[in-house]
Amino acid sequence: MRIDCISIFPQIIADALAHSIPGRAQAGEQLSLHHHDLRAFTTDKHQKVDDIPYGGGVGMVFKPEPATAAIRAVKAMSATENRLVIHPSPAAPPLTQKAVNALAQYDQLIFIASRYEGLDQRVIDQHVDREYSIGDFVISGGELACAVMIDAVSRQIPGVVAKKESVEQDSYYDGLLDYPHYTRPAVFEEQAIPDELRSGHHEQIRIWRKKQALQRTLDLRPDLLETAALDKEAVKLLRSMGYRAKERS
Amino acid sequence: MRIDCISIFPQIIADALAHSIPGRAQAGEQLSLHHHDLRAFTTDKHQKVDDIPYGGGVGMVFKPEPATAAIRAVKAMSATENRLVIHPSPAAPPLTQKAVNALAQYDQLIFIASRYEGLDQRVIDQHVDREYSIGDFVISGGELACAVMIDAVSRQIPGVVAKKESVEQDSYYDGLLDYPHYTRPAVFEEQAIPDELRSGHHEQIRIWRKKQALQRTLDLRPDLLETAALDKEAVKLLRSMGYRAKERS
Repeated sequence: MRIDCISIFPQIIADALAHSIPGRAQAGEQLSLHHHDLRAFTTDKHQKVDDIPYGGGVGMVFKPEPATAAIRAVKAMSATENRLVIHPSPAAPPLTQKAVNALAQYDQLIFIASRYEGLDQRVIDQHVDREYSIGDFVISGGELACAVMIDAVSRQIPGVVAKKESVEQDSYYDGLLDYPHYTRPAVFEEQAIPDELRSGHHEQIRIWRKKQALQRTLDLRPDLLETAALDKEAVKLLRSMGYRAKERS
Repeated sequence: MRIDCISIFPQIIADALAHSIPGRAQAGEQLSLHHHDLRAFTTDKHQKVDDIPYGGGVGMVFKPEPATAAIRAVKAMSATENRLVIHPSPAAPPLTQKAVNALAQYDQLIFIASRYEGLDQRVIDQHVDREYSIGDFVISGGELACAVMIDAVSRQIPGVVAKKESVEQDSYYDGLLDYPHYTRPAVFEEQAIPDELRSGHHEQIRIWRKKQALQRTLDLRPDLLETAALDKEAVKLLRSMGYRAKERS
């Protein structure tokens, strides 16, 4: 997969993705990552990428000319049509694992990171295929949001994460929060791991984990239970916690 | 404010926060950021930070000993008691702007970034004050989540963002998605900005923006309307869009 990032701080995105799994994906050539400085697409002496908002107000807005020129130039670098232009924006639907998995199916993703009050809406209307938010909070720019999205997508490119299982067992695959994890020693500073995990009884451990995941989801993210895949066993466990759910696969 | 980050990839967090507003906060000394390599708190020759999960299954779990030692050592570096230990986790409530604003009130925040299947639950139970998720998707480690959280918090430290207004006018302050932004030129590649913004009529512009923010929120994030601050005017505008809301400040 080819991913291009257009921003005024290419270094933030490049550095954030240089290590760990996205770093490995680049080294293993499953991911070809290209960074483009938006200022290189300005035509004025001062390389101005932003201007004051029409209609007044504080802050600055990314100008349409350099952003449009950059998107066109980046598109011209690659022949594929199986691609999307993505703009991280707080004024967009939240990124979900389902969206991440869908993004991983494209040949090319072009990210454009804006800052301040954002990107001129005309560029979004004309050239951006998808907008996603990484959460209901304000960060300083789209660069870190791009890095987060690219990290998430890179994990889903075939051959990047060694054990398919460890991708699929991660949270959000069944739509529930993950159960608590423990490792050795069995007793640390007088705190023992739960008895069920010491039993060596696989079925008992499976049920304990499922119950923990359901209870945690019920406590912290009950909204997820409205869409999670729930089998007969999950429905029964939830009922024992006082939550009435319907089977849904 | 002092922020400490404990992780096995200190460079990811340091690099991600070296530029832009978090970089300026450090240069201006409003933010003192310290990075700690979790491996430095191991006692074995191989500096092993993780081990297999109790009860079986794929993946690795961060061991309790180095994490506990690191948190204690970092706490000992600073005299304040007005601090929190934070663990980014996908199995946690989502980070919100309200939580970010509350975090910015502390003297010190200690972040611990885990990876793989996460941190031994005993460390969380004993030493972690808050867990937050940055979204319903899987990323490779807590480092980028830490960077995102620290970026968000750093903007809220007094004196970091020059114009108080530009922090407060950002999305999520009134609980609505932001309205579309436009800048010069008024016509770009045959696309004109909305007439309202060219009017120069402040009241008309204010109403247009409010209506856009409400419509976008209704379209993309109707859940936010259940908690957003809505004045009489917002309620009236929403009713004209077919959404029945109650005044709420």
